[in-house]
Amino acid sequence: MNNPLTHFNEEGRARMVDVSEKSVTERIATAQGTVYMQPETLRLIQEGRIKKGDVLAVAQVAGIQGAKKTSDVIPMCHPLLLTGVDIQFEEYPEPGAHGLSSIGITATVKVTGQTGVEMEALTAVSMAALTIYDMCKAVDRDMFFNQIGLTYKTGGKSGTFTRQNVSEV
Amino acid sequence: MNNPLTHFNEEGRARMVDVSEKSVTERIATAQGTVYMQPETLRLIQEGRIKKGDVLAVAQVAGIQGAKKTSDVIPMCHPLLLTGVDIQFEEYPEPGAHGLSSIGITATVKVTGQTGVEMEALTAVSMAALTIYDMCKAVDRDMFFNQIGLTYKTGGKSGTFTRQNVSEV
Amino acid sequence: MNNPLTHFNEEGRARMVDVSEKSVTERIATAQGTVYMQPETLRLIQEGRIKKGDVLAVAQVAGIQGAKKTSDVIPMCHPLLLTGVDIQFEEYPEPGAHGLSSIGITATVKVTGQTGVEMEALTAVSMAALTIYDMCKAVDRDMFFNQIGLTYKTGGKSGTFTRQNVSEV
Amino acid sequence: MNNPLTHFNEEGRARMVDVSEKSVTERIATAQGTVYMQPETLRLIQEGRIKKGDVLAVAQVAGIQGAKKTSDVIPMCHPLLLTGVDIQFEEYPEPGAHGLSSIGITATVKVTGQTGVEMEALTAVSMAALTIYDMCKAVDRDMFFNQIGLTYKTGGKSGTFTRQNVSEV
Amino acid sequence: MNNPLTHFNEEGRARMVDVSEKSVTERIATAQGTVYMQPETLRLIQEGRIKKGDVLAVAQVAGIQGAKKTSDVIPMCHPLLLTGVDIQFEEYPEPGAHGLSSIGITATVKVTGQTGVEMEALTAVSMAALTIYDMCKAVDRDMFFNQIGLTYKTGGKSGTFTRQNVSEV
Amino acid sequence: MNNPLTHFNEEGRARMVDVSEKSVTERIATAQGTVYMQPETLRLIQEGRIKKGDVLAVAQVAGIQGAKKTSDVIPMCHPLLLTGVDIQFEEYPEPGAHGLSSIGITATVKVTGQTGVEMEALTAVSMAALTIYDMCKAVDRDMFFNQIGLTYKTGGKSGTFTRQNVSEV
Repeated sequence: MNNPLTHFNEEGRARMVDVSEKSVTERIATAQGTVYMQPETLRLIQEGRIKKGDVLAVAQVAGIQGAKKTSDVIPMCHPLLLTGVDIQFEEYPEPGAHGLSSIGITATVKVTGQTGVEMEALTAVSMAALTIYDMCKAVDRDMFFNQIGLTYKTGGKSGTFTRQNVSEV
Repeated sequence: MNNPLTHFNEEGRARMVDVSEKSVTERIATAQGTVYMQPETLRLIQEGRIKKGDVLAVAQVAGIQGAKKTSDVIPMCHPLLLTGVDIQFEEYPEPGAHGLSSIGITATVKVTGQTGVEMEALTAVSMAALTIYDMCKAVDRDMFFNQIGLTYKTGGKSGTFTRQNVSEV
Repeated sequence: MNNPLTHFNEEGRARMVDVSEKSVTERIATAQGTVYMQPETLRLIQEGRIKKGDVLAVAQVAGIQGAKKTSDVIPMCHPLLLTGVDIQFEEYPEPGAHGLSSIGITATVKVTGQTGVEMEALTAVSMAALTIYDMCKAVDRDMFFNQIGLTYKTGGKSGTFTRQNVSEV
Repeated sequence: MNNPLTHFNEEGRARMVDVSEKSVTERIATAQGTVYMQPETLRLIQEGRIKKGDVLAVAQVAGIQGAKKTSDVIPMCHPLLLTGVDIQFEEYPEPGAHGLSSIGITATVKVTGQTGVEMEALTAVSMAALTIYDMCKAVDRDMFFNQIGLTYKTGGKSGTFTRQNVSEV
Repeated sequence: MNNPLTHFNEEGRARMVDVSEKSVTERIATAQGTVYMQPETLRLIQEGRIKKGDVLAVAQVAGIQGAKKTSDVIPMCHPLLLTGVDIQFEEYPEPGAHGLSSIGITATVKVTGQTGVEMEALTAVSMAALTIYDMCKAVDRDMFFNQIGLTYKTGGKSGTFTRQNVSEV
Repeated sequence: MNNPLTHFNEEGRARMVDVSEKSVTERIATAQGTVYMQPETLRLIQEGRIKKGDVLAVAQVAGIQGAKKTSDVIPMCHPLLLTGVDIQFEEYPEPGAHGLSSIGITATVKVTGQTGVEMEALTAVSMAALTIYDMCKAVDRDMFFNQIGLTYKTGGKSGTFTRQNVSEV
């Protein structure tokens, strides 16, 4: 009887799964996440972009580099020759019931290879979120990240996966 | 008039803030986050730990290494000589209203230095969460992360910060 | 007359050998090594795995990440898209003539590419051995590593290589 | 009752040990190891140094960089500001009973800090040995490493440790 | 008789110089360099900043991260806890005698430590220049870098060094 | 109307360009650069190579490793499986009109892939130049780098590019 968690060998120790028999296909993955913050914090980010100090430009670079570093920072991830990485930010200044504004982050990663890029997309979102926190923490230490998850993947044996929104609890 | 986002120079370009005048103090930071998953996924993780294939042991290593890599992956973070990193997992098998189980991640990082370790604690939590996702994605692609944020910091000019829970939206 | 050490150019300076004319084949390499220690040290490792503190789980992660980092740490190694990495530990509690117990480490690495993965397998073994040392050095500073070498490789122009044991001196 | 393997927390999970209470002292560590090879292989290395293609110059660089990368590749190692790294090679062309020549590697690492540099010295030796293997494997795939261990350390609470030779089995 | 190139040991092999006896002082270094390009290329960079696609914002991040990576990429450099990194760009749209426009890059790095940050400042300039090239090479493959050198350093035994301009040949 | 700087998405934010539709071809790039120094400095380098302390052997290793690190240090560069890297140094002891000697650096990089290796060749030259500076700065802080640029590339849709010398200003 196999362990359904395929990342373990017969001794129950972690391994980098053997994908040498998998076929090389084009694979795409998209992940999302949201950074919640005080409305004043978002206002500073928006002003900075126009005038001086573009927080999201730095977060963009961090997210793209994060995608490339995935196999270095996530222990069982395979190295991959990413063919494209893009990150989009969407700003929600209007405070919700909780009184907070937010920035939505969407990362899309492409590869032609034997394994998918879900982790690369999720790592890109996480790094972009962490960088936003880092650059604004002097004014808003209470920022937090929610709903970081996969929203789309295609390619590979398991086919296409889609969901509208990462579920809220 | 200064930009309250201190990570920018007079030209409005990002910089690594000059902390050379800050005093060297002991600094501690704690961050938290939660990974939501199907109850069956948590059951597999728990079984694996006992019998074969300890997901959280790998996530623990990834989180600790993530803390050490923070200044490499977050562009404006200062390099720091971390003196201690610890990560705790708390398992919540009982499904909530949403029908999901969860694992809470808490990372605590220490340093004696001129700048704090908030980002190191947050990065450790993010890396541990990503690794849990990676190792269980074959059985549960819908896993997601919520409430990743800072819960405690001490040391440095801004003093001590505490909150009970990272706010839920 | 050529230098039989192919890693040098005509000026006698090191180069990363040009493999662009080599054919892409599936390649596998296995390397081994042994960590010698006090019987009491091995007993602590074995107890830890059952109850608390699994040294070999951390060494396993370090070995797998080491395989992925090979082209970063060994100057003339080519970057490769490893398709699989696995590590096995074998415990020998029975002290030999020298009064020491030991742990055998075996790493197997796979790739489909233009150059082999001997160095990746050897680096994985070395990193796993170093991590065992690190985690036990507080109780046994005299631990040492022996017989680290290649035991098997296949694929590529030079064909298959096998040996039973890395020679003892 | 504590786990004598201090790298584990109360839950039995790995941690980077808290050294924040340790005093800052000057610390030095020396490690050794031996690479065994065919006499002809050593002859090629020696000729190369004189005429063209200095294997040991590359291994030297790899060893020094390896010392600096230790906290990146060994999961529970603390980052440290190494103040000095040096590596010596000693050549033994005269074949032993086993008919093999050898190169001895000695690495010495210094730091002023809260934790020792044993792992940095051992990692430097391992990286230098791996690089020698890499650069000569085209002519001698049977090379192997023996007796990699610590021979000296000083500084820190546990004081000075010395041994003449890493024990042979 | 000593080798005036202090980076070599008695055997003539490279080493990371022992700085453990040097005193800890505040040290600052500034380096400069110039990227030459077609006037049209500079125009595109300037337009991008205002409207869409800020090349220099990416180069800024690359330069800052480059400063932090110096001890990883320059073999004999000591690891250092940089306390500040800043980069300035100056644009010269007016074509010179040669018909080219240019961007001047100035990087300033600070540390409190036992060795200087000249290499960190020079690495920051080089990484920023390379990133400008990368992002504009689709429109101007002939871009090149000139006069990359140190313009200022202070702190440490050798005192203060200043020059107006990196010499032109 | 498109931004001719293809590294930006529709929002004007940086992206790693999507090359998934590009064909896989063999690609080669060559870059050059020159390090200017006092005649006495070059004399020390030349003596060192013969007798003790080979500066250029270390620079060679740094350049080759730099080529492999390109996608890690240049934010929008794609990861690539380099199949070959070689670096040549040419020494010009005869002082020019300015009274300086120089070392020319030429790096050639090969890949079979979907995007070119211009950045890898330029990064290799930059890292080699920085390493020469590092190892000689104790005797000649005024060294500087000039004419770092691309001299040749082939493969890919844009075809072959050649120039005799990187233009001097």
